[in-house]
Amino acid sequence: MNNNLLKSGEHIDDLERDGLSIIQKKGTFAYGVDSVLIANFTQVKDGETVLDIGTGTGIIPILLSAKAEPSMITAVEVQAEMAEMASRSIKMNSLEEKIKIINQDIKDFAKTNQASFDVVVSNPPYFKSGGAMLSSNNSKMIARHEIMLNVDELFASASRLLKDKGRFYLIHRPDRLVDIFNASRQSNLEVKQAKMVYSKQGEKPKLIILECIKGAGSEIKWHKPLVIYQESGDYTQEIYDIYANTKISSFSS
Amino acid sequence: MNNNLLKSGEHIDDLERDGLSIIQKKGTFAYGVDSVLIANFTQVKDGETVLDIGTGTGIIPILLSAKAEPSMITAVEVQAEMAEMASRSIKMNSLEEKIKIINQDIKDFAKTNQASFDVVVSNPPYFKSGGAMLSSNNSKMIARHEIMLNVDELFASASRLLKDKGRFYLIHRPDRLVDIFNASRQSNLEVKQAKMVYSKQGEKPKLIILECIKGAGSEIKWHKPLVIYQESGDYTQEIYDIYANTKISSFSS
Repeated sequence: MNNNLLKSGEHIDDLERDGLSIIQKKGTFAYGVDSVLIANFTQVKDGETVLDIGTGTGIIPILLSAKAEPSMITAVEVQAEMAEMASRSIKMNSLEEKIKIINQDIKDFAKTNQASFDVVVSNPPYFKSGGAMLSSNNSKMIARHEIMLNVDELFASASRLLKDKGRFYLIHRPDRLVDIFNASRQSNLEVKQAKMVYSKQGEKPKLIILECIKGAGSEIKWHKPLVIYQESGDYTQEIYDIYANTKISSFSS
Repeated sequence: MNNNLLKSGEHIDDLERDGLSIIQKKGTFAYGVDSVLIANFTQVKDGETVLDIGTGTGIIPILLSAKAEPSMITAVEVQAEMAEMASRSIKMNSLEEKIKIINQDIKDFAKTNQASFDVVVSNPPYFKSGGAMLSSNNSKMIARHEIMLNVDELFASASRLLKDKGRFYLIHRPDRLVDIFNASRQSNLEVKQAKMVYSKQGEKPKLIILECIKGAGSEIKWHKPLVIYQESGDYTQEIYDIYANTKISSFSS
């Protein structure tokens, strides 16, 4: 491990996949199971150009680099400190030739990179920003609430950046599904696949994973739902499979 | 039973609830489990005015009459033969004072009955109509395909007919959810509750049940999912409960 890439308060997590690891910072810059789920669901063909909107720790590009051979993964992050930390994780994994971290607001990035990507992926802020939050510049706040990027802006940016028939992969909260499905149609990114995620069997849904295709016709193909925990509190076999190297690798094509 | 109300090819089904029964016609005018599910989900307070869009056999109003005391249930059906059969079911159950069947296109009915209802309910056609189907006047076709009423017209009619803060209850197919959520927002009927229906645990979702409220703010409250069949092929306990008198009665307020 290149511990010389670490700053105060940070630590390195082993991703247990192809020897990959990632820099995290407790309580602030940490990735969750949702990033692993969306990286697993995302289909990338060799040679494609990929963009991650709001990359945070850089977890999604690092995981994608382990399961396919895109020509380049571009990862945009609006928060300077977070982008700088993600860049060090890329360096630590010697992925500088495969993953490019850009510290920019995606809305600005979208102005100059139209129709440049085959695939866009995002684990965006889930929660609406209340008025009081708008003045906050707390990094966790920005990652979780729609302070810098709301769902309409996310879809508008993704649509602008994608080539025709390009795919947009997204994980979000089912509570926001009317907002999401209106934004998708308005931005010509039609929802083609959906997978509901339950924390436990028989509970209300916790997350939803979507594939949208630019310029496609309507009607969703639903997957069987994903359940994260068994009744005992252990992960389900499907989650173990997603975390396991083999399964992840089998998704590359 | 008033068998003198029966026509050729028809039979009477006992609803096993408050002595209620319904006239059905094999292969054409028959209700399904979806009508029972939406009637069960629909919340009706005593004294409210209720409208059923596309009532078919009249199953939803008959079931609603058993679980609450609305001031009147109006049930509109575009197909003359079906409306006539539903009227005989109402008569057979002596519900003429509680349920009024109207043979009219809901789009015309909506022109003259604006903001008249506290509750609108519908088990609408689920499938898009292909061009070839548009000329068909087969009754089953009209009940299942968007020949006479598409999802945009359904929501526009429901919104026009509902009072402010009135509730619209709907069952539909998850495949159509982008169409539905766009129609709902365009018609100012915001989706407030949603319940996913699975045929069996671990399969892709089969149906979705929604509550929309006219003029409400966004964000959906999801229910825990409903599973219809056990692994063995038997109904789940929840379905038995929905079909049972007691559970249905307990929903009235």
